[in-house]
Amino acid sequence: LEWLWNNTFYKQGGPIFFYTGNEGDIEGFASATGMMWDLAPMFHAAIIFAEHRFYGTSLPFGNLSFSSIENLGFLTSEQALADFAALIYELKTPNNAWSYSYPKNTPVIAFGGSYGGMLSAWFRIKYPHLVNGAWASSAPLIYFRGGGVDQGAFDAITTATYLEAGCNRFIVENSWNAIVNLSSTKDGQDFLNTQFRIDPKSQINSTSGGWNLNGYFREAIEYMAMVDYPYATSFLMPLPGWPVKVACSFMNATGTKFSDKELATMMYNAANVYYNSSGKLQHNCIDPTVCGDMATASLGEGLAWPWQECSEMIINMCSKGGKNDFFWDECKSNSTNLLASVCKYMFKSFNWTTANWNIDAVPTLYGLTVQDASNIILTQGHLDPWSAGGYKASSPDNRNDHGIYVVEIPGSAHHLDLRKPNSCDPNTIKNARYQIVQILECWVSSCNKSLRMNKLPALEVAPPETKCEDVNNGYPWGQRSASNSLTLYTLAVFTLVLQHLPF
Amino acid sequence: LEWLWNNTFYKQGGPIFFYTGNEGDIEGFASATGMMWDLAPMFHAAIIFAEHRFYGTSLPFGNLSFSSIENLGFLTSEQALADFAALIYELKTPNNAWSYSYPKNTPVIAFGGSYGGMLSAWFRIKYPHLVNGAWASSAPLIYFRGGGVDQGAFDAITTATYLEAGCNRFIVENSWNAIVNLSSTKDGQDFLNTQFRIDPKSQINSTSGGWNLNGYFREAIEYMAMVDYPYATSFLMPLPGWPVKVACSFMNATGTKFSDKELATMMYNAANVYYNSSGKLQHNCIDPTVCGDMATASLGEGLAWPWQECSEMIINMCSKGGKNDFFWDECKSNSTNLLASVCKYMFKSFNWTTANWNIDAVPTLYGLTVQDASNIILTQGHLDPWSAGGYKASSPDNRNDHGIYVVEIPGSAHHLDLRKPNSCDPNTIKNARYQIVQILECWVSSCNKSLRMNKLPALEVAPPETKCEDVNNGYPWGQRSASNSLTLYTLAVFTLVLQHLPF
Repeated sequence: LEWLWNNTFYKQGGPIFFYTGNEGDIEGFASATGMMWDLAPMFHAAIIFAEHRFYGTSLPFGNLSFSSIENLGFLTSEQALADFAALIYELKTPNNAWSYSYPKNTPVIAFGGSYGGMLSAWFRIKYPHLVNGAWASSAPLIYFRGGGVDQGAFDAITTATYLEAGCNRFIVENSWNAIVNLSSTKDGQDFLNTQFRIDPKSQINSTSGGWNLNGYFREAIEYMAMVDYPYATSFLMPLPGWPVKVACSFMNATGTKFSDKELATMMYNAANVYYNSSGKLQHNCIDPTVCGDMATASLGEGLAWPWQECSEMIINMCSKGGKNDFFWDECKSNSTNLLASVCKYMFKSFNWTTANWNIDAVPTLYGLTVQDASNIILTQGHLDPWSAGGYKASSPDNRNDHGIYVVEIPGSAHHLDLRKPNSCDPNTIKNARYQIVQILECWVSSCNKSLRMNKLPALEVAPPETKCEDVNNGYPWGQRSASNSLTLYTLAVFTLVLQHLPF
Repeated sequence: LEWLWNNTFYKQGGPIFFYTGNEGDIEGFASATGMMWDLAPMFHAAIIFAEHRFYGTSLPFGNLSFSSIENLGFLTSEQALADFAALIYELKTPNNAWSYSYPKNTPVIAFGGSYGGMLSAWFRIKYPHLVNGAWASSAPLIYFRGGGVDQGAFDAITTATYLEAGCNRFIVENSWNAIVNLSSTKDGQDFLNTQFRIDPKSQINSTSGGWNLNGYFREAIEYMAMVDYPYATSFLMPLPGWPVKVACSFMNATGTKFSDKELATMMYNAANVYYNSSGKLQHNCIDPTVCGDMATASLGEGLAWPWQECSEMIINMCSKGGKNDFFWDECKSNSTNLLASVCKYMFKSFNWTTANWNIDAVPTLYGLTVQDASNIILTQGHLDPWSAGGYKASSPDNRNDHGIYVVEIPGSAHHLDLRKPNSCDPNTIKNARYQIVQILECWVSSCNKSLRMNKLPALEVAPPETKCEDVNNGYPWGQRSASNSLTLYTLAVFTLVLQHLPF
């Protein structure tokens, strides 16, 4: 297990900030989770980023880690949590392997985004004796069978994010057929291969190639909604600020009269924002069976996440087209079978069958409720397609009196709240973070207050001329005013009445 | 996985009473847990007893289950809980393997005694979405490293139970040396082998045989304290009511002037209450390496529980002698090493080393606190040596407002509260059960009341002439009076004050 450890800001009595690593190299999450670094000085916190087994350098069987189902059987969220638990336990054990230990009563706050957010929430649920609370950002905890999430919800939000950013819906929803049409003729194929710099390894010479291109573009569209941050970032890809807005600047022509080549080109230009913001990309390799998944290559995940998706993390989603989203209708076919066929293909060397997955693994092991849990902050960004799979603020699970805080954040994308504060952050993010800090303060001091989240302010984004730059140690980010502060329940008058049960 | 299933009393809307099987055949626990059967009709409850993997007929690798460390690696409490979780999940899944399912919102109450009580408590802690609450009887949840339990506490309670029952402490504490003395001479050996009907397979011909005999007797003494029930039972062995009292009738002579043969004989007669209440036992086989552990043979456990003790359930206890207990001083040697040497011997065919156990498995996985848990009833019998390893009513863990109820029951032995009600039950047990039923009623109806346990009444045991017999469906067992009923917190006047945080 690789883990990163920083005691620069730690002082005796301070907490441990513990990032529950997700599907990628831990270094990437360490740099994308600036909030932990930013808050550590004021909390006197130690910082730990723990890598998820089977990712990065944490390969339990070295080169053989992905060589058999037997070995991959050790790749589960449950095992990852057990690793994290053992690490924390050991860190609090005197005379440990590192000759450095924290006091037993050191509070631990788990942090995580996306799947890492699921892990941090589950970590608190399963190991409350080791974890005092969790800040679980953008965690699609209920996007599983029985969770009541519509299969098309992810792409419905994707669509909404683009329409809000000024895209002409007609252009997006008609680009897919335009591309397939083009891919069905020699002239169209030449156009696509040449204009869109299709990699020689993945040339389009049939409609099947056209669908590859659609898939390639669609990923860019979806991922840009996820990482639609207000400033330039490079989490999955180097991107400009508000990339969806930039993409929509290529798809905001009005009207409905466009040729197939025009539609395809507009989509290409939009997707190019994602794949080629540097302008240096030579070729687009659109066939994942040849080049892997270009959209998420930076996570360096290889087979690990696909294996999790095909064993325990059975997230069933599909686009529906029509009123739901501006993609095409995948849901009409059985989407579970669709996913199974992907798994079968991906793991054909293991003779993968549906006996190798457990569709109800997450509902069984973790449940699709946090009603009996406590001390979990669950943030969701309104721009983020993954927010479809998270708890809603209106859910009965959102019990502030139990320390459960569902925070829906307008203007926020995928785990923006955990990133380093930035001068271009919307006021909603600033306010959410401010309130969250109060909650963390409460948790690390074992306070008995019952804090309640206040409504976030109406969204205000930074003016376009704002220079976007890191804001270091800027707490409280201008959020000190009373109207934005947290509410504290106080039982001013408390009378105990003994009452006999009628039973 | 073998499991017993009874729907006789189940009615739509009723709960599932689920016994989390422990170290033995599930049938034994089904008959020793009469309380579940007794309460099922009034709760309209379905009854399930689920066997623990690697016990009874639930052998995952058949005859090979105990053939290798690889196979035994699947024998853990964590895996057992996962089995139980999968079973409950499946039972609530429409069109399941049994063509019979319960509604998703069916409340589940976990029951368990001893290690089964640990499992039921952990089941609620780890799977709160599947288990609404647990009645964990006599569960030594903190008898692990870091739990703050004195290693000698088990035998201190054993001793107290015997002294309360009228034993002369001098006799017990001097019988051990008397036996060792006798075993050191030919005459003494003949005396022991003949008078005590020592099995030809385990004849005493040295002091090592004398220590075998001490161990054999000591087990009887300890187990009788555990099963010191007020009426005749046959849980581990067929026993008369209040067996400790019967045993002490052989060890209550006053004074200190006894010969070695007298001391040994008194101890033999006392132990005979345990091993030979029928009077039909031919021989005492005192060497566990030859005959296995005679004291717990009825559990039919074989290697499974020893393996758990040598892998994850590292319960570190020893007698101290002196003021602590009437046994001898084992603690003076390092008791962890002592246990390790037992494990090494027991699993020598696997080349067991301390690398095969994890002393901190339980503290890491489950923790030694229930402060962040809810809805667990933790009963402890004052007569029961295992109560040493359970939570105390005075513990900060005992938070009734969280649904945690530590109930210390005077006059009760090991999980007496879960047994079938009996006319000879002490009033404390009756009252504890009565209060517990109120709590269960609350849990299965998802009530929002905050119930508080009332103090149990002063102990009154049934007069000796009482005819001990089952009491069927006898709720409320004469406990209806107001003074014994549960207290209900009511917040009569509730004022919400908004207060700004000083931070």
